[in-house]
Amino acid sequence: MNDMTEKSAFHVDDGDLALLTDLYQLTMLQAYWKEGMAERATFSLYFRKLPPTRRFMLACGQQYAAELATRLRFSEAHRARLAETGTFDDAFLDWLGGFRFSGDIWTLPEGTPVFENEPFMEVDAPIAEAQLLESLVMNLVQLETVLASKAVRIVMAARGRPVVDFGLRRMHGVDAAVRGVRAYRTAGLAGTSNVLGGLRHDLPLRGTMAHSYILAHDNEREAFRAFARHYPGTTLLVDTHDTLAGVDKVIELMAEEPELRVAAIRLDSGDLGELAHRSRERLDAAGHTDVKIIASSGLDEHKIAALLDDNAPIDAFGVGTEMGVSADAPVIDLSYKLVEYAGTPRVKHSTGKINLPGRKQLYRRRDAAGRLAGDVIARRDETIEDAEPLLVPLVRQGRLDTAAMALASDARERVRRSLDAMPETLKRLASGQADYPIELGPELAQLRSRT
Amino acid sequence: MNDMTEKSAFHVDDGDLALLTDLYQLTMLQAYWKEGMAERATFSLYFRKLPPTRRFMLACGQQYAAELATRLRFSEAHRARLAETGTFDDAFLDWLGGFRFSGDIWTLPEGTPVFENEPFMEVDAPIAEAQLLESLVMNLVQLETVLASKAVRIVMAARGRPVVDFGLRRMHGVDAAVRGVRAYRTAGLAGTSNVLGGLRHDLPLRGTMAHSYILAHDNEREAFRAFARHYPGTTLLVDTHDTLAGVDKVIELMAEEPELRVAAIRLDSGDLGELAHRSRERLDAAGHTDVKIIASSGLDEHKIAALLDDNAPIDAFGVGTEMGVSADAPVIDLSYKLVEYAGTPRVKHSTGKINLPGRKQLYRRRDAAGRLAGDVIARRDETIEDAEPLLVPLVRQGRLDTAAMALASDARERVRRSLDAMPETLKRLASGQADYPIELGPELAQLRSRT
Repeated sequence: MNDMTEKSAFHVDDGDLALLTDLYQLTMLQAYWKEGMAERATFSLYFRKLPPTRRFMLACGQQYAAELATRLRFSEAHRARLAETGTFDDAFLDWLGGFRFSGDIWTLPEGTPVFENEPFMEVDAPIAEAQLLESLVMNLVQLETVLASKAVRIVMAARGRPVVDFGLRRMHGVDAAVRGVRAYRTAGLAGTSNVLGGLRHDLPLRGTMAHSYILAHDNEREAFRAFARHYPGTTLLVDTHDTLAGVDKVIELMAEEPELRVAAIRLDSGDLGELAHRSRERLDAAGHTDVKIIASSGLDEHKIAALLDDNAPIDAFGVGTEMGVSADAPVIDLSYKLVEYAGTPRVKHSTGKINLPGRKQLYRRRDAAGRLAGDVIARRDETIEDAEPLLVPLVRQGRLDTAAMALASDARERVRRSLDAMPETLKRLASGQADYPIELGPELAQLRSRT
Repeated sequence: MNDMTEKSAFHVDDGDLALLTDLYQLTMLQAYWKEGMAERATFSLYFRKLPPTRRFMLACGQQYAAELATRLRFSEAHRARLAETGTFDDAFLDWLGGFRFSGDIWTLPEGTPVFENEPFMEVDAPIAEAQLLESLVMNLVQLETVLASKAVRIVMAARGRPVVDFGLRRMHGVDAAVRGVRAYRTAGLAGTSNVLGGLRHDLPLRGTMAHSYILAHDNEREAFRAFARHYPGTTLLVDTHDTLAGVDKVIELMAEEPELRVAAIRLDSGDLGELAHRSRERLDAAGHTDVKIIASSGLDEHKIAALLDDNAPIDAFGVGTEMGVSADAPVIDLSYKLVEYAGTPRVKHSTGKINLPGRKQLYRRRDAAGRLAGDVIARRDETIEDAEPLLVPLVRQGRLDTAAMALASDARERVRRSLDAMPETLKRLASGQADYPIELGPELAQLRSRT
């Protein structure tokens, strides 16, 4: 907190995240405190509508959020700053100094496909504690959920070909760029160009070369030669001046210096399908059937699918802009709603919106072949036969359940298996409603009609 | 760097930002180093096309990026991690350990309106130094530029009424949420709900109450009463169950306890225009002409303009989702291109793309009334009569020019004055090309046709 107000400090310390909240959370906390309202509440995290361009979302970031919830503290410096606002009593700020999250957090394991109105995180705690988490949990969970849900579509579109993240420069700031790589790892990307993100989140680092390297040399051929000598097995960027002339120069270079190994060329502009076909022909004709073609430049899942539908001989894709901000669906309309207080289910009666009262569990059914067959949103203690309960208590009485964390941790493998088990209707890239049944458990349906 | 690989650590230390780069920057750096390429280069930051939904962008974040450039260092721990990749020689990593930015950085002052192909930052330095900045500068500058450019449209749409940022929960992670508030301050917002962002970047904190507070109480009236007693002059959220019934309860409460001061009501769902009219009527009929109406819920500049066109009696707007990610233009296609090396202008000859060679200056013309009349993109040392040069050297020989920083710092005031001086064609909210002349200086035009 010491540098919290320094204009030049970029980094947000974990220790400052208690203040990464909306002011009304703190004023409500003080109000609950003054009114002696300390009963247990349950807040449920879900979204009401999928973006029209998504058939499912991958729930990501909850583990991180749960872990952080157990570490939120208001330091003396934080409280001094809050005191300066004139809004808070000293006695309340003293209480805030002792703030510890003491409740339970149930979440879907990261990488679980999730649909409209399904709880993917529920927080059970004394109301002030659960209320305080709202803004931070939503911010943290949305980022990874939005990015992983876009990235998995690009992975599907690439049909087994590697997809590499080139998005660092387009992503929304430092945290998005670093944690985004975590979401991309979950979604199944093969690598990232982002050094800090890749090192921190265990996704292999990948990189080629930029146009500036070519331009800084007197000519393209010498640039290729120098780079290939430095980095045996490298990828050469061939479109700085004229793509096919660039390919020819790579071929000539390999003829001149047979000991140079060029693993791939990269196409970064123009008609990628046409250029890939013509580059492949030239490379093959020169006997370089093993030199791969990597394509980048404004790619998204639809462009990749169209290229592969046309049999474009592209071996790997570099994707930046569209994936980096999930440009066609940069937000998901998450809600974090009070659904129970003091043992009584609560619900907001806004017109036209579905709100499901009470603590819940999410069940998923599979058919005989192991394929996802439909979901049941149920009361927490309701038993649904022949269906798997998905929400797991990661935090109990304020303590991380490390066994549950470990169990929940292999998100990438979970996504892979989920894609294998998904009906085709969910995997289509086109916009449109998926035909995937989601029903309410009988007890939840009954509770809902009662409240 | 000590916790760089800890999966549980969120925060990115300033000290780790040297690694927030694309792998190819580091491989190119090593190649330049091996080849003894250490001549000065100039890289220019600009965008080729405005998003179709923008008539101008506000250049923001460059000051931050420039400052950070002077502080980038590769620690021993960073170099050890890079060594593990197997890509880098020890001698190069030793050189990297001594890395200091020694060049110059010219930027537009933050908050300057900027258009297609205009340089809003130019970096002159030995090529490795200028190359290394690419990914980080683009990431940092894009975030604030994109968010400020969206926010200023919302400020314009509100026609002088205060706009408050409610976007924390929708923004892309921690850094976006905190630095986003800096961009919002620049754009002219009146306040933010984001406590950490507002405290750090000096934007007043604002907040009301959430539906959960109402729902946790046995009834809405008691919730209103309790909150208004705690916070004299507060805003009450009236739409939890039935908006107009909620307004009636506020009026009844004020009749019962005349000493309670309610400053405003907030409408957060439904037909905001209609509800504002009917709420205003009820409040006025009860003599509460001084109680304001605040509206929120899915607002953007078009919805705000439509509400005000209909004379909706709304006094202030809370805006979250659409502004928080600049949903209609979440990225700007920034380029950071080598334009000169070793004294020779360079340019990439991609088809159909404009690339302007050499070091540049941007000039802005005003008419007799002081209105913006057009821009001239010129060579750095070209003189354009009757026009103001806008690029300022914030960093010289690796040192921040603190006087230039101070001069450049009042971005919010610069935006306000720019809006006053802008022709109407630039301020229209509708999509479409603005009729604002941008020409090339004669010497730049000549250089361009030569290269």
